[in-house]
Amino acid sequence: MRMYEIIEKKRDGFELSLDEINFFITEYCNNSIPDYQAAALLMAIFLRGMNERETADLTNVMANSGDRIDLSSIAGIKVDKHSTGGVGDKTTLILAPIVAACGIPVAKMSGRGLGHTGGTIDKLESIPGFNTSLSTEQFIDNVKSIGISIAGQTGNLAPADKKLYALRDVTATVNNTSLIASSIMSKKLASGADRIVLDVKTGSGAFMKTFEDSVELAKTMVKIGKNTGRKTIAVVTDMDIPLGFAVGNSLEIIEVIDTLKSKGPEDLKVVSFELAARMLELSGIGNIDECRARVSNAVESGKALSKFAELIENQGGNKDVINDSTLFPQPAYKLDFICEKPGYIQFMKTDQIGIASLVLGAGRETKESKIDYSAGIMFNKKTGDRVEAGESVAVLYTNREETLLHAVSLLKEAVVISELPHERKPLILAYIDSEGNIKK
Amino acid sequence: MRMYEIIEKKRDGFELSLDEINFFITEYCNNSIPDYQAAALLMAIFLRGMNERETADLTNVMANSGDRIDLSSIAGIKVDKHSTGGVGDKTTLILAPIVAACGIPVAKMSGRGLGHTGGTIDKLESIPGFNTSLSTEQFIDNVKSIGISIAGQTGNLAPADKKLYALRDVTATVNNTSLIASSIMSKKLASGADRIVLDVKTGSGAFMKTFEDSVELAKTMVKIGKNTGRKTIAVVTDMDIPLGFAVGNSLEIIEVIDTLKSKGPEDLKVVSFELAARMLELSGIGNIDECRARVSNAVESGKALSKFAELIENQGGNKDVINDSTLFPQPAYKLDFICEKPGYIQFMKTDQIGIASLVLGAGRETKESKIDYSAGIMFNKKTGDRVEAGESVAVLYTNREETLLHAVSLLKEAVVISELPHERKPLILAYIDSEGNIKK
Repeated sequence: MRMYEIIEKKRDGFELSLDEINFFITEYCNNSIPDYQAAALLMAIFLRGMNERETADLTNVMANSGDRIDLSSIAGIKVDKHSTGGVGDKTTLILAPIVAACGIPVAKMSGRGLGHTGGTIDKLESIPGFNTSLSTEQFIDNVKSIGISIAGQTGNLAPADKKLYALRDVTATVNNTSLIASSIMSKKLASGADRIVLDVKTGSGAFMKTFEDSVELAKTMVKIGKNTGRKTIAVVTDMDIPLGFAVGNSLEIIEVIDTLKSKGPEDLKVVSFELAARMLELSGIGNIDECRARVSNAVESGKALSKFAELIENQGGNKDVINDSTLFPQPAYKLDFICEKPGYIQFMKTDQIGIASLVLGAGRETKESKIDYSAGIMFNKKTGDRVEAGESVAVLYTNREETLLHAVSLLKEAVVISELPHERKPLILAYIDSEGNIKK
Repeated sequence: MRMYEIIEKKRDGFELSLDEINFFITEYCNNSIPDYQAAALLMAIFLRGMNERETADLTNVMANSGDRIDLSSIAGIKVDKHSTGGVGDKTTLILAPIVAACGIPVAKMSGRGLGHTGGTIDKLESIPGFNTSLSTEQFIDNVKSIGISIAGQTGNLAPADKKLYALRDVTATVNNTSLIASSIMSKKLASGADRIVLDVKTGSGAFMKTFEDSVELAKTMVKIGKNTGRKTIAVVTDMDIPLGFAVGNSLEIIEVIDTLKSKGPEDLKVVSFELAARMLELSGIGNIDECRARVSNAVESGKALSKFAELIENQGGNKDVINDSTLFPQPAYKLDFICEKPGYIQFMKTDQIGIASLVLGAGRETKESKIDYSAGIMFNKKTGDRVEAGESVAVLYTNREETLLHAVSLLKEAVVISELPHERKPLILAYIDSEGNIKK
């Protein structure tokens, strides 16, 4: 087999066989295929596309390129959840204790944030003492003992995806549905869950800006799941507005705790509860209405909050943060972002809000950046809300005073005020069942 | 300017500006742009195409990437001729002395052969003593003193094309009309001729296998000529059959001499004379009918043969080869390729005949291969001819006895015999005028 012929075949619009995809990925990871040939193939894939079979094969081959976590020693059906990333998206931290409180094991490996979206692991690390660096053994043992563990990626999961992604990133071949879907799903497959719930975000703060693109990505991932024997469903949710009021690590943990105490923002509750219910449904413990009821009960009874406290304690964190938010690192500087004219918030450029938060210190510009856990933005108003001149739209938090002006100027552009009232869009935009059928 | 954005732009089907093309070529040659980004852009160009303006700009930028030969000190209009390459294609060596004998200066830089097609320079070097390695000064002085010089490329012509071609060769991005046309024309532009006659071959022995593709390539190159101020015309000629009977270096020189003595094969005469007439026409000395008459006169009068002898002598070769073919290196082995069944030659897989000749030692498999000037194939019969069982279709020449069986087996596949008579196709298939209009 020769790489040249594989490039030629895809260039001319033909389907690649499993053998050809396997040859490409294996030899590329062995450094036997040079970057320039891989780049030519990636551009050909970008422009010619891959069908369902090729996409599933690529995913499988990448999932097999490194370690695979074996969760089989944990009893029951393990359901994973993945979000394509958004601003203020802390749903994992709400739904994980809810699902665990309902008796379904949660073995969640999560990523760190890069760019304008935050990472679950970074958020957890804002809790004093919380340890996310677990060995696979520890991780599995934690799930066995208390039904939940959330840790950073251990082992070498899907290294082929890592190498390919780095090349896509510099050759303008990132934004292709098959390539995005196989990249995400290869890591999910290697992480060992039996079933997968996907939260595909759409809108100005999401990777996919349009509803149509988001649905296409969701369907592609669901079909990969189907074709690789991991039952997968997807929920397409709105990311034209930050989720909740808090953006930034400790600010978001505080909002998570509030939500588990039934005191959180409505939008965050709606999305988190729906995803939790879908995880329960996928685990097979009941129909969706029963599962929604179980989710509400778990929160109202306080069991979900207790499970969260148990998770914190079990991973070395100080569980007292649940009742005392002053135990979190505190920022040296706070500044109100004041509205200059009266009106209604018409639109929030959500990715830019993510960048403002990053500028304040809450995110990473490069992999090496160090995070300020106390930094971020706490909104008082969001899209659709009435604001008066001189009113505070948000409060900025940081330890680096010099970043405040830059962040304010970003927010000024990001929050668009108009004289007309604005109706809020629904949050749950579509549901894709495990066969890839859409239900709006 | 960033390479990433240039890739993205072409990926999405937009037109690249001159500045962007210039940035890409200049920075790629400086090694500031990595191969993998260039490969991604090449595949995007391959699949999205380039328009007439982009193609002309790419050609100009590549022509300017190295030395440019200045022929302005030679009086008169300098007309160059380029063939896209074929098997048995020795037209340059016939038309060059004819054109020079008609008083039009011939300053011809030529290439070496690679793969199944031969190179003019290799053929000339089969003449004992002939020197093709001239400095640019010597080359120009020769043209000034005797009206003709044929030399290997001197200087560093279009190095950007060389670097880009090497990458295209390994990324399946060779076979795109704009890229092929700009590659050929960039070297022609750098070689300094005022006007250009193109011989675009079509058929089984050519780079372009179909008439339509050949016409498209011819038109694209003619338009590049127009858009870069070098009046260019093209003739599309048949390469479904080797040109003449001889394939191999000294064998072809002997056939050239025969043709200049009016004793050569008809097909070779037709193509060479037509190209010579087009060169004369393009130089402005008369209409095409007048130019055709001048060509015939130059040969019939013996002036063209004398000019060839003068060329040989002036570049250090032994001009006695013109009357004594035993002065050429002689092969140690000869073998008849015998026809097994009676019939008519239906088809000749011309590229495979080129490969058989290469196997015998007449060509180069890699740039480092050493050529056996005496090796090759002398056909007795060609497409359309009647053959009897036991009759010799061709004689194989080589110094490497061990290659004979392999070459014979290639010829057996290449020469297809049928019971039905077969009519020969016309040789001159189309003419493309300097505006890009086709006349069949």
